[in-house]
Amino acid sequence: MSVVKEDKLGLDRLIFFTDAVIAIAITLLVLEIKVPEIEKGLVDAELTHQVLALLPKFLGYLMSFFVIGMYWISHHRCFRYIKGYDRALIFINLLLLLFIAFVPFPTALLFSYPARFISVALYAGTMAAIGLIKVWLWRYATHNHRLVEKTLDPRLVKSLTIYQFPLPVIFLISIGIALFNPQFAMYSWIPILPAYFLFAPAETE
Amino acid sequence: MSVVKEDKLGLDRLIFFTDAVIAIAITLLVLEIKVPEIEKGLVDAELTHQVLALLPKFLGYLMSFFVIGMYWISHHRCFRYIKGYDRALIFINLLLLLFIAFVPFPTALLFSYPARFISVALYAGTMAAIGLIKVWLWRYATHNHRLVEKTLDPRLVKSLTIYQFPLPVIFLISIGIALFNPQFAMYSWIPILPAYFLFAPAETE
Amino acid sequence: MSVVKEDKLGLDRLIFFTDAVIAIAITLLVLEIKVPEIEKGLVDAELTHQVLALLPKFLGYLMSFFVIGMYWISHHRCFRYIKGYDRALIFINLLLLLFIAFVPFPTALLFSYPARFISVALYAGTMAAIGLIKVWLWRYATHNHRLVEKTLDPRLVKSLTIYQFPLPVIFLISIGIALFNPQFAMYSWIPILPAYFLFAPAETE
Amino acid sequence: MSVVKEDKLGLDRLIFFTDAVIAIAITLLVLEIKVPEIEKGLVDAELTHQVLALLPKFLGYLMSFFVIGMYWISHHRCFRYIKGYDRALIFINLLLLLFIAFVPFPTALLFSYPARFISVALYAGTMAAIGLIKVWLWRYATHNHRLVEKTLDPRLVKSLTIYQFPLPVIFLISIGIALFNPQFAMYSWIPILPAYFLFAPAETE
Repeated sequence: MSVVKEDKLGLDRLIFFTDAVIAIAITLLVLEIKVPEIEKGLVDAELTHQVLALLPKFLGYLMSFFVIGMYWISHHRCFRYIKGYDRALIFINLLLLLFIAFVPFPTALLFSYPARFISVALYAGTMAAIGLIKVWLWRYATHNHRLVEKTLDPRLVKSLTIYQFPLPVIFLISIGIALFNPQFAMYSWIPILPAYFLFAPAETE
Repeated sequence: MSVVKEDKLGLDRLIFFTDAVIAIAITLLVLEIKVPEIEKGLVDAELTHQVLALLPKFLGYLMSFFVIGMYWISHHRCFRYIKGYDRALIFINLLLLLFIAFVPFPTALLFSYPARFISVALYAGTMAAIGLIKVWLWRYATHNHRLVEKTLDPRLVKSLTIYQFPLPVIFLISIGIALFNPQFAMYSWIPILPAYFLFAPAETE
Repeated sequence: MSVVKEDKLGLDRLIFFTDAVIAIAITLLVLEIKVPEIEKGLVDAELTHQVLALLPKFLGYLMSFFVIGMYWISHHRCFRYIKGYDRALIFINLLLLLFIAFVPFPTALLFSYPARFISVALYAGTMAAIGLIKVWLWRYATHNHRLVEKTLDPRLVKSLTIYQFPLPVIFLISIGIALFNPQFAMYSWIPILPAYFLFAPAETE
Repeated sequence: MSVVKEDKLGLDRLIFFTDAVIAIAITLLVLEIKVPEIEKGLVDAELTHQVLALLPKFLGYLMSFFVIGMYWISHHRCFRYIKGYDRALIFINLLLLLFIAFVPFPTALLFSYPARFISVALYAGTMAAIGLIKVWLWRYATHNHRLVEKTLDPRLVKSLTIYQFPLPVIFLISIGIALFNPQFAMYSWIPILPAYFLFAPAETE
């Protein structure tokens, strides 16, 4: 078999590379928030007003940061059980990184043009893709215990699979909603954060 | 209990991810300093003048670099004793990173529009939030020796808590000062660097 | 001999540094895709149209991401067998990083001005240089088993060398094609992804 | 004593953080090279001409990449012998990172306005500062074998000290030259790369 189970350094390097890309993507988000340009001599009130007008961009930063953060947490969670890698796993993980590294663009687009169909669809589509590829990665690694310990409890495999579904599913549904009402589609994302914490499996499983 | 004490790789990954985000945030600061655009054929004196006019931005870079650097040092210090993690710790740490990754924006704002209330308040507020979340993280980890060795000296726990307070407290107070005099509020940050080194507990404790 | 075989931390640091540079270069690519600026009050159709007009830039992102990703994979592959380092290896690796960190520029140039000779040549030249330097690195490390185990199978050394050739060779040939037809030169890159997976040696070799 | 010699993870984290900052600084350099904007319909020759006009920026990228690369190599070299850390070492290292992370700005300034005194002086000053702080770090760590093995050969300590001097000294001298002739000051940097390799101590010392 072509599975590389014993190569600890290789697996560490894969995880490290993933973390580095996620860390950079999450940190680049702030570059999309530009300092407002006001004319010299304007009173403080104008500056305050301009900074407050950036509120949608702050929310965008907050939202993308936490969504990617949650994806990082569940990636972290899955790789506590994944003990080896093969070429396909590396490829699936690279596909995951492709979408994660792309996030700064849809974030900037959405919070420059909120409540427009294309903005909402591209944002939700990117986020859904990340979530679904992560499910694929987990299914691939655990199928017939391909890259996990033989003794890994199938109930844990299942509960971690279920745990990864709500986020991408909510994002996918919101694309449908956006066809009718992009504003409302954005509101539909609000339950994501509490849902994530409610449905997370206990860590002792 | 849901504490994951034995997962060395998981904890390393959490620390690594944190370091990567801090390293990126600290390095992106320089992107806010733009090369001045002067007309062709101007004498050297004009360029020198324009570069010297960037002095407030250099100071901003210096200040944010050292404040985040100090926060990194004390994060580093705390995690010498934290031996495990749970979901809450990951979440608190993510919140910490949210504010650290945000720092380039208030830095750019402050040193584009120094001595304005909104600039000073947003900068000081961000820096105070980072400091307070870090105290929360340490309190959470050490409460009832939740994520530290049972043998960890309570005096060390306490001295590290105290050590983390001056920075956020100075920043919080400066927001109050800024209501009356934003310029003076900025001067009130000057004692931060010496204070930090004076009040740091000895490393042998 | 000046080979440092026993310095595990030093080698780890070299690999880590490489991964960090690759991760950053790959993630900076997205910064070249700017949010379109449309006038306020324009209908959704205009925004959608503008976003779709970015398609060449999305393709550029996709292409550069995967080419660097493939280079990362084969770097990862080679360093599973490289067990030591010396000054020359560090230098060759630094040269590799010089070209990898440069990739965001030719990517932006190519997808701002596609199908122009200079764009195609600079892009293909950069990518070919990365591939050839990587072959050089592998040849250097394996020559007389300089930095690999004495027991490493020469057939593996050879198969990994062959595996690294198709990408830079395709890019080099495309520069020649671009002299006559830059558009067609770009099409000539399409077989790269499937070729890479077809010619990859089995992982058990 | 307040030296922390046994904290392997803490030292690794310090090195890792340093490498991350250096990797980011080195990779951000390319962002200063902007894609030229030419009018639609212009012939290929114009684009080629504009890209060739970027040559000074390419050289700047090349130069800063290699100078920081060389500093990274000698940092890497020193830390093969440094086995512990204390608060002062962390602080000196942070100071080092302050200047390294700053490099993209003087690089952009120099290659936007080459052969001007302020550009040359700021660039050379930044690079000299990095080199001198690194000497300071090494002196601090090795003084009375403070943070290195007691058995470390004093000749190695000395040869590594000498090895770190040429770069900052050349940069310092070039500031003096720039007072009279900034163009010539830039030429005086050319021997840096060969000098570095000639004077490097053998790795077996």
